[in-house]
Amino acid sequence: MALANQETILDSLKEHLTAEQISVNETIKELHGQDESYHQMKLPDIVVFPETTEQVSAIMKISAQYKIPVIPFGLGSSLEGHVIPQSGGITIDFSLMNNVLDVYEEDFLVRVQPGVTRTQLNKELKKYGLFFTVDPGADATLGGMVATNASGTTTVRYGVMRDQVRDLEVVLADGTVIHTGSKAAKSSSGLHLNGLFVGSEGTLGCFTEMTLRVYGIPEFITAARASFETVKDAVEAVVSILQAGIPIARVELLDEESMRQVNKYNDTAYLEKPTLFLEFHGNEAGLQQDVEFTQEIVQGHGCTEVAFETDTAARNRLWEARHTLAYAYIHAHPGKKMMVTDVCLPISELAGAVEHARENLLELGLPGGVLGHVGDGNYHALIMIDMNNQEEVEKSQEFNERIVLYALERGGTCTGEHGVGIGKQKYQRQEHGGAFDVMEKIKVALDPANLLNPGKNIKGE
Amino acid sequence: MALANQETILDSLKEHLTAEQISVNETIKELHGQDESYHQMKLPDIVVFPETTEQVSAIMKISAQYKIPVIPFGLGSSLEGHVIPQSGGITIDFSLMNNVLDVYEEDFLVRVQPGVTRTQLNKELKKYGLFFTVDPGADATLGGMVATNASGTTTVRYGVMRDQVRDLEVVLADGTVIHTGSKAAKSSSGLHLNGLFVGSEGTLGCFTEMTLRVYGIPEFITAARASFETVKDAVEAVVSILQAGIPIARVELLDEESMRQVNKYNDTAYLEKPTLFLEFHGNEAGLQQDVEFTQEIVQGHGCTEVAFETDTAARNRLWEARHTLAYAYIHAHPGKKMMVTDVCLPISELAGAVEHARENLLELGLPGGVLGHVGDGNYHALIMIDMNNQEEVEKSQEFNERIVLYALERGGTCTGEHGVGIGKQKYQRQEHGGAFDVMEKIKVALDPANLLNPGKNIKGE
Repeated sequence: MALANQETILDSLKEHLTAEQISVNETIKELHGQDESYHQMKLPDIVVFPETTEQVSAIMKISAQYKIPVIPFGLGSSLEGHVIPQSGGITIDFSLMNNVLDVYEEDFLVRVQPGVTRTQLNKELKKYGLFFTVDPGADATLGGMVATNASGTTTVRYGVMRDQVRDLEVVLADGTVIHTGSKAAKSSSGLHLNGLFVGSEGTLGCFTEMTLRVYGIPEFITAARASFETVKDAVEAVVSILQAGIPIARVELLDEESMRQVNKYNDTAYLEKPTLFLEFHGNEAGLQQDVEFTQEIVQGHGCTEVAFETDTAARNRLWEARHTLAYAYIHAHPGKKMMVTDVCLPISELAGAVEHARENLLELGLPGGVLGHVGDGNYHALIMIDMNNQEEVEKSQEFNERIVLYALERGGTCTGEHGVGIGKQKYQRQEHGGAFDVMEKIKVALDPANLLNPGKNIKGE
Repeated sequence: MALANQETILDSLKEHLTAEQISVNETIKELHGQDESYHQMKLPDIVVFPETTEQVSAIMKISAQYKIPVIPFGLGSSLEGHVIPQSGGITIDFSLMNNVLDVYEEDFLVRVQPGVTRTQLNKELKKYGLFFTVDPGADATLGGMVATNASGTTTVRYGVMRDQVRDLEVVLADGTVIHTGSKAAKSSSGLHLNGLFVGSEGTLGCFTEMTLRVYGIPEFITAARASFETVKDAVEAVVSILQAGIPIARVELLDEESMRQVNKYNDTAYLEKPTLFLEFHGNEAGLQQDVEFTQEIVQGHGCTEVAFETDTAARNRLWEARHTLAYAYIHAHPGKKMMVTDVCLPISELAGAVEHARENLLELGLPGGVLGHVGDGNYHALIMIDMNNQEEVEKSQEFNERIVLYALERGGTCTGEHGVGIGKQKYQRQEHGGAFDVMEKIKVALDPANLLNPGKNIKGE
């Protein structure tokens, strides 16, 4: 169903964009109607490909004038339906705004456009001996990563996406262009808009430039793999490592089932037991001492096998095994879709939560496994579902719900890093209580007509 | 001048607080009419000392009902007039809400009331081998530190106050009690209210409980002092240290004049040249390597003398010298008041900014010196002013203005850690541009009657 005034809107767009930058092609629309999740596809009415902040501002003014929704789109790698145009509208695809604009070496900062991907940025930064720390697995765009407050394997050491953002250029609902921060490393000036816009999922404005923090590539990196008899032992070992003040850079937990999938997919022969994948960044002497101390700690927690890898190739093999996990599951379940839970709990509650997840997978008869960013208390259960099997779909939804409620009852959050999108809206009131009303007031103040990615994050349809 | 309806308001307060918890005593009011800054005293009409969240909620409801301002008060150690009741009203003194409520050892979290001071918290945490990282110098209350987004000497390693906040219990303008976060280490759920309320200076709500991040006490600590010929050399050495990935925990710069004051006050004989005070946290082997590398780097930048201190007593002496700086200036200028500038710039602009500050002190004939949290690009010029000497007052204001404008023109901020209060309001529009309107919309949405610490932060009188 085309928009009633589609021609008028297209004419307005053509005043600011070239014909090639505007599409109503069905295939293009379908590509922008879904993400990597199990959520149902819906089509935008128009897809635009701006190249400048001015063009984005013009698009937002047209959106305001004709009361038509706008949905920002990076690469569509989100997992909760963030980019699906719930009420149609104009999808703004940022793939043409993909330049690394500046590398401020001395300031450990980089200024990028939102369409730049994580690996693209790291390739550029390598020339300067710098790197961008956040690694959510997918090669997402940085705009998308800011929009969902993405994080991942290195968060335990370097923080989440929000911790990396110094400034955002944002186009607001009325087309106004603002900057939410500055190039200063810290500020106590005004209200903290950087933090507010990070994780806002396109519901408060569109990002057109981002100034992000980067780090020097560490002098030395060591990786390790440690197997345990139980998930509880593994998690307790991590708590002890953190308490010892050892600055681990990554610490990932894979349960038995996930290790089985890893072995099958990679043709490896790792012990099929709860396993920690660890990484340490620092200087050589310091890492040697950290590694020895870590070995003592994991052995004190019933670790049955531990292997350290200092050379780059061996380290890459180890992390490849970890990173292929999602593909391993997908490969083992052809024709099925992946659903990923994403709660985060206080670390003291993590072992219990993972056990609870495993029990519920078993009870509901769902195939799947658990992996966790243990240092942060964030874990994912991966379940493969046949979207045509209504019972399986319902069971997986029931599973997700049990996982979320377990986390919320224990001081946790319904989403550690994937965001709210469509999938986690129904838990917003429960998680935030009265704070939800404050969020709604802010949304209404900045987007009174509810045209910015409507139906996402806190604001339902 | 008493409030017209003061008796009615006092009667309402008495329904919720004991007589001892309410004061209209002139001395008490004077104690709550000023902070440590040069800003002019104004008196509250009533001072209350609540003990519970419920009492704070009741006070806020009375504020809303009678349209009377409320001003939260910690210890009055702020430097920009944050606690001065610009339009009178009820000052809420949080000194009776000073309990450490919970230490969550495994989760590296602590739950405290807002009246707890920094040293009080660290004394309690020491029992668990933990420490709270933020050190602004003053033994401020944690409520005040959250309200201004305080930071200080350890920020280069551990981050600012905002980075430590997991959850705030906040009483809103209408008395509603909300929680802005959870106990999870990270979250992508909803809008990021933690970040928004940190640094809001009592203008969006009152904090009644705070869940904060803590760290394990490092295994090993080393401190160092390094003298340079010029401020530029010292700052460039810091950039090189950061680029080398050496995880310094503190790095403070004192200029010649400040070193002179330190020597005079402490009876020490440090070289009276631009000097870096450094501290390293880690394991013994790693620190040894860091220290050697740092020595090489500083010598490569023209360092004329470097001294390392590993034992606790020597380290404490060194940091005492640094920490007594403000007192040294005050001691050397009896009867004068201290004005402290507080800009933060990209670190690449810091050396130039410090030189600019020194030139302007000279040009205006103001006595004072410079110290800086160099790792963050934040520095302070300390000037001693005779508040009865109008010319000196005007010159110091002119100086502050030049410092701020220099920073804003170079991508910096008008306040790195002290906050806006009264003193930095006039720069808000210039620093934030269109973002200032967004801040105002948020303020109006949450405090439509402008009763929460009116005349502070973004909202003038």
